[in-house]
Amino acid sequence: MSSSSTTPILKDELDIVIPTIRNLDFLEQWRPFFQQYHLIIVQDGDPSKVIKVPEGFDYELYNRNDINRILGPKASCISFKDSACRCFGFAVSKKKYIFTIDDDCFVAKDPTGKEINALQQHIKNLLTPSTPFFFNTLYDPYRDGADFVRGYPFSLREGVPTAVSHGLWLNIPDYDAPTQLVKPLERNTRYVDAVLTIPKGTLFPMCGMNLAFNRELVGPALYFGLMGDGQPIGRYDDMWAGWCMKVISDHLGLGVKTGLPYIWHSKASNAFVNLKKEYKGIYWQEELIPFFQTVSLSKESTTVQKCYIELSKKVKAKLGLVDDYFNKLADAMVTWIEVWDELNPSEEKSVTLPNGLAK
Amino acid sequence: MSSSSTTPILKDELDIVIPTIRNLDFLEQWRPFFQQYHLIIVQDGDPSKVIKVPEGFDYELYNRNDINRILGPKASCISFKDSACRCFGFAVSKKKYIFTIDDDCFVAKDPTGKEINALQQHIKNLLTPSTPFFFNTLYDPYRDGADFVRGYPFSLREGVPTAVSHGLWLNIPDYDAPTQLVKPLERNTRYVDAVLTIPKGTLFPMCGMNLAFNRELVGPALYFGLMGDGQPIGRYDDMWAGWCMKVISDHLGLGVKTGLPYIWHSKASNAFVNLKKEYKGIYWQEELIPFFQTVSLSKESTTVQKCYIELSKKVKAKLGLVDDYFNKLADAMVTWIEVWDELNPSEEKSVTLPNGLAK
Repeated sequence: MSSSSTTPILKDELDIVIPTIRNLDFLEQWRPFFQQYHLIIVQDGDPSKVIKVPEGFDYELYNRNDINRILGPKASCISFKDSACRCFGFAVSKKKYIFTIDDDCFVAKDPTGKEINALQQHIKNLLTPSTPFFFNTLYDPYRDGADFVRGYPFSLREGVPTAVSHGLWLNIPDYDAPTQLVKPLERNTRYVDAVLTIPKGTLFPMCGMNLAFNRELVGPALYFGLMGDGQPIGRYDDMWAGWCMKVISDHLGLGVKTGLPYIWHSKASNAFVNLKKEYKGIYWQEELIPFFQTVSLSKESTTVQKCYIELSKKVKAKLGLVDDYFNKLADAMVTWIEVWDELNPSEEKSVTLPNGLAK
Repeated sequence: MSSSSTTPILKDELDIVIPTIRNLDFLEQWRPFFQQYHLIIVQDGDPSKVIKVPEGFDYELYNRNDINRILGPKASCISFKDSACRCFGFAVSKKKYIFTIDDDCFVAKDPTGKEINALQQHIKNLLTPSTPFFFNTLYDPYRDGADFVRGYPFSLREGVPTAVSHGLWLNIPDYDAPTQLVKPLERNTRYVDAVLTIPKGTLFPMCGMNLAFNRELVGPALYFGLMGDGQPIGRYDDMWAGWCMKVISDHLGLGVKTGLPYIWHSKASNAFVNLKKEYKGIYWQEELIPFFQTVSLSKESTTVQKCYIELSKKVKAKLGLVDDYFNKLADAMVTWIEVWDELNPSEEKSVTLPNGLAK
């Protein structure tokens, strides 16, 4: 398929959301790619600590006190002392697109040694359609030099709007604590030059380290749950958001891509600390995945908000039996949508249901 | 996941099936990789023409006269003057694995300039499990240097047996006639260093140019249909086989991988000739895909043969309305299973149904 080889980067249509910045080098290294954009920093820990932002960046910064002041009692749905707080930044943004990245993620190089403009690749992914109804063996058919292969139905070649672009990581792979413990030295050195649509009906583990999305299409689904301070689990914030988002995107006929761009993930978090955060999630997820694989949303749920509220009810009904935590989480999902709608009045839109085959 | 970096190639367990050989260079170029294996050549055209096989290869060759003699009236299910005849080679083989390749496919080079042993990569793909129930963002988790990422359910990490390994093509991409006509100069130059499982419930366009499979697990599903001489379409032989095979593999809990290895596809077939072969398929496929996306097989179909017979009945019931050709094809599907069972007596095995979530 024809696609522009020089996709414009939308300066006024994108915010970069960062959960915290512990390292000044982070923004210095990204300066050539990020400086033209507005940053939203959501401080994940102690609000008395000061986050230094280098000269020349346009940013707003929210700490816990700000979140409490802005949201009042509804601040309860935003995690504290956990990078899950980043979703507050998604809600306060007024832009069409969000790119969120962790502060231990640096500029990676492609196999030719060239620095990768991760944001530009995300925008290319988001501005070209997705193909969730049929797999294309040459990967993203909208990339230069690629197309739909023989046998790909012509009626599906327009694709559907892309809601999410999930980027990957060179160096430290995103492993769970058990795998970290077993393979402490494993590094991801394989640069896979591909972007692909995750098919309809298929779930994936969405990592929040290097993630972009169309906020107008799918923003309210990107809630990162209740993690960190006072909560029984951590490191499942992005997973939760990914499962909810994928189910809703499938329902609404939106696409999710994964693959390029890579960032350089500089350091592994502590595997023992991670194990403590994850262990409940590791067994809970054995019941969560079948739930998300089989949950279906009603035809009346025609907006992301409506889908999300319906999903919260099903979470309460089904997963509340797994642990009382999911009752709390289901309530927080409802509060989150209230927060979103307060911060984004009159934004709710009816998304046209997909024209996909075999819905 | 741990995986052996030096996967043994199974000398006595694999046959190479080639639909014709028009070019002596073909086998010369593959000699270092193929010579240790047995070749089954199924001559696709005029049986009076002689196919020359270079010295040193161990092979058997079947032309149309041989097929008629061996199968009698049942030879009607094997296409003539079309590379779809290759499936006869799948049926007469007695080996566990099949690699099939077209004679315009040569040895490709990886980005370091090293010649790619395509067969070895196929065998690696077939000997490691597939993961059809959940997408792994670092692709095949069984490759060296890769694993399951955070958030991948542990209960699914054993995977399922791999039935098919679908390889790709550098240089001439496998495009349909309309795309060939629009983009005559497009070449595939992107080496994507990935193997991945096509998720359960997702169809793909399977190309027969560079394909390997586990004949014991899924052989009878790899019927290449009625194409060529006397038939209304061509170039849908591998597509048909792929759709049937994927539906059956999903039903039986078997996996299908695509990606590596690449071969070098040397020349594009004539786009005008292809258009003539394809044009009915191009509009028929708009009804075929929804059929295959929604067809479901009964619990009683516990073997590939039973699945295939059940599928043939559904083809007749549903697709017979699209065109009478599909009634003929449905009958040929039944004949094909009779041929398979005659050539492979007492082979039928009950495949254990999958333990996958959300079956």
